[in-house]
Amino acid sequence: MKDYFDFAASTPVSLQVLEAMKTWETDNFANASSAHQAGQASHQAIQKAREIIADKIGALPSEIIFTSGASEANNFAIKGLAFKHLDKKGHIITSSIEHKCILNTCAFLESIGFDVTYLAPDSYGRISAASLNEALRSDTILISIHHVNNELGTIQPIAEFGAIAFENGVPFHTDAAQSFCKCAIDVDDMDIDMLSLSGHKIYGPKGIGALYLRNARDSELVPLIHGGGQEGGLRGGTSPTPLIVGLAAAAECYPTEPSPDEQRFFNAIKEFEYTRNGGVDVVPTTWSVTFKSDDDVKSFTHNNPWLISQGSACNALSNVASHVLIALGMTEEQARRTYRISLPPYQISWK
Amino acid sequence: MKDYFDFAASTPVSLQVLEAMKTWETDNFANASSAHQAGQASHQAIQKAREIIADKIGALPSEIIFTSGASEANNFAIKGLAFKHLDKKGHIITSSIEHKCILNTCAFLESIGFDVTYLAPDSYGRISAASLNEALRSDTILISIHHVNNELGTIQPIAEFGAIAFENGVPFHTDAAQSFCKCAIDVDDMDIDMLSLSGHKIYGPKGIGALYLRNARDSELVPLIHGGGQEGGLRGGTSPTPLIVGLAAAAECYPTEPSPDEQRFFNAIKEFEYTRNGGVDVVPTTWSVTFKSDDDVKSFTHNNPWLISQGSACNALSNVASHVLIALGMTEEQARRTYRISLPPYQISWK
Repeated sequence: MKDYFDFAASTPVSLQVLEAMKTWETDNFANASSAHQAGQASHQAIQKAREIIADKIGALPSEIIFTSGASEANNFAIKGLAFKHLDKKGHIITSSIEHKCILNTCAFLESIGFDVTYLAPDSYGRISAASLNEALRSDTILISIHHVNNELGTIQPIAEFGAIAFENGVPFHTDAAQSFCKCAIDVDDMDIDMLSLSGHKIYGPKGIGALYLRNARDSELVPLIHGGGQEGGLRGGTSPTPLIVGLAAAAECYPTEPSPDEQRFFNAIKEFEYTRNGGVDVVPTTWSVTFKSDDDVKSFTHNNPWLISQGSACNALSNVASHVLIALGMTEEQARRTYRISLPPYQISWK
Repeated sequence: MKDYFDFAASTPVSLQVLEAMKTWETDNFANASSAHQAGQASHQAIQKAREIIADKIGALPSEIIFTSGASEANNFAIKGLAFKHLDKKGHIITSSIEHKCILNTCAFLESIGFDVTYLAPDSYGRISAASLNEALRSDTILISIHHVNNELGTIQPIAEFGAIAFENGVPFHTDAAQSFCKCAIDVDDMDIDMLSLSGHKIYGPKGIGALYLRNARDSELVPLIHGGGQEGGLRGGTSPTPLIVGLAAAAECYPTEPSPDEQRFFNAIKEFEYTRNGGVDVVPTTWSVTFKSDDDVKSFTHNNPWLISQGSACNALSNVASHVLIALGMTEEQARRTYRISLPPYQISWK
C-alpha cells in the first residue's frame, strides 16, 4: 500500500511467508493431531516452527505455546496464572501504559477480587525499576510489563524488571508484540518467565502468535482455551499449521535493514516543528510526534496524506485521547496534536 | 492428498477461499481497527463476512463474533456464561459425548465449584430430549449439547433441546463445528442462544471460527480474550481479516453435491462385515464403522491404506479408546475395531 506508515498496527504478509503457508493449506491440509502420516508431517512442521521461534528468544521448543495472537497470549499468561490463585486471590503489578488487552484483563481480575497496581511512566514513557521494587508485596503473584510501547516505541528496561522479579520469586511476564524480532531477547539473561509475541507485526499472518512459558509442562498455568490436548494440554483447538509455519517463516526472513521508504518520512518531518515522544531509548521505526501547533498538524497531514494513526489502532476508533499519552502527562489538546508514524520494522541491535 | 478420508478432522482450503484471502494479506493488510481508509476497508470486508455467516444460520450480523476456531468459541460460550455466575456458581447440562474442548472446560468449571450433569447417549449416540428434561434444575444456568457428533456423525435433535431450554428460560448453546454448512440451521426456529462454528471443517482456513451469540450486545457474556474493543468488546485481538474473509468465502462456496471420491469408499467397504455406528440420523459423510473381526480390520486397512482415524483427530494420539465409543456401551475391544472414515463434506438437506 502506497503511503502506508502504520506498520506498528499491522504489516503485510511477506511473499516468503505466503509461499511457506501454501503447502499446508492445499497440499497437506491434515489435522496435526491425526495419527496418520499426513497428520504427523503436519505435526513435524509445527515442531520445526516451534524450534525456530524458541531459538529467537533463547527458549526451549517445549516452552513455546502457539496462540491466536499476542492478545490471547497476554490473556492466557495473566488469567492462567491468576486462576491458579482463585481461592486466595493476590496482587498483580503492571503499568498504566500497557496494551488495552492487558489493562482490560487486569480490570476483569480486579472485578473478581484481585488487587492490581498500575505503575506510572515518567514523561518519556519509561517505567522505572525503582517503582517496581516499591510496589512489590508479599502477596504479589505476577509482574506484567511490556517490552516496547506500541504508541511510543519506548523500550522498557525489562532485564531490570526480570532481575527484581527473580530475586523476589515472582513470575515476570512481558508483552513483546512490538519487540519480537526487532530487539534482541534472551529469556534467561532477562529473567523472563512468560513472553507474548505476534505474527502480523513481523510480516507474518494475522491470527497467530505465541506465549513463551518457562518450564511449560510444570507450569500448572490454567488453560484459557481448554481443548483436545494440543500444545501439551495448555491450549486447545486444531493447530493452524499454515499460520504457525507462516509465523516461523516471518521470524526467519525478518529484515535486518531499514526500508528505503523511511527516507520519505524523514524528508517530510524535517519541515515541521514537533517533539518526538518516548525518550531516547526507542525503536527507530515508531515515531510518536507531537506537532507544535494545529497549523503544523494541518500542513503535515495535507502535504502527506498518509495512512497513520492517532494513538494505536486499537484505540483509533474511540474519540478519547490515548491512555498512553495522558499517562505521560499530556493535555487532551497536546494528545490531539500527536500522531504515530510507524515505519517498516527491521531488526535493530540491543543496547 | 490421495487416499485422504479424514475430512471430519480437517479439509483443504479451497482455491476460491485462498483467492479471497490473498487481497487482504498483501494488497490491503491494514489493521481493521485503524481509523484510516485502508483500515476501514478492512473493517468493511469483515462486516460483509459477518453478514454472510449470519445469513447461513438465520442470525443478525451483530450476533456473530469471530474467534480462532470452534474450540475457542466453545470455551467462550461456556466460561463466558459461567463467569457471570462466579459468585453463586450454578448447574450446567451437557453430554458425555461432547468434543474434548467442552468436556475439559466443564471439568475446569467443576474444579472451581460449578455442578455439571453429563447426559448419556443411547447406543446409537443420540441424546434424548427426555433426559434433558429430567436433568433440569432450578439452578441450571446453561445447556450445551452439540449438533453433529464428530466421531459418529449422529445428528442430535437440537430443536427439541432448544424448545426445552426456551420453555425453562435456560440459555442453549450448541457446538456446530461438524454441522455448519452441512445441515440447515436456523437459530430462531431451533431456539439456539449460542452456536460455535469452524472454518477448517468447511474448506476454509484453520485458525478461524465464530460464536453466534443471541443479542450479543446485551448478553453480558464475560470475554474469554479481553482486548482493545474488537468484536463489540467481546473478543480482543487484531481481527484477522484474511481468515475472516476466507471463512465467509468457504461458507459461500460450500459444495452442494457429494464428491466423486466417495464412491471409492462405498466400493471398498461393501466387501467387509461391519456395523455402522451412529443410528439412522447421521450425516452421510461421517462413517463410524466397527468391523466384525480383527481379520476384517487387517484386510480393510491393508487393501485400503487410507488416511483415516480411530476416533477423532483430537483423541488420535492417546492410546485410550474414544470416550464417545465407550459411552455407546462398546467394549475396549470393539472400540479397537472401530474406524472413522470421513468423506468430503457437502450440504445435505435437513430432516
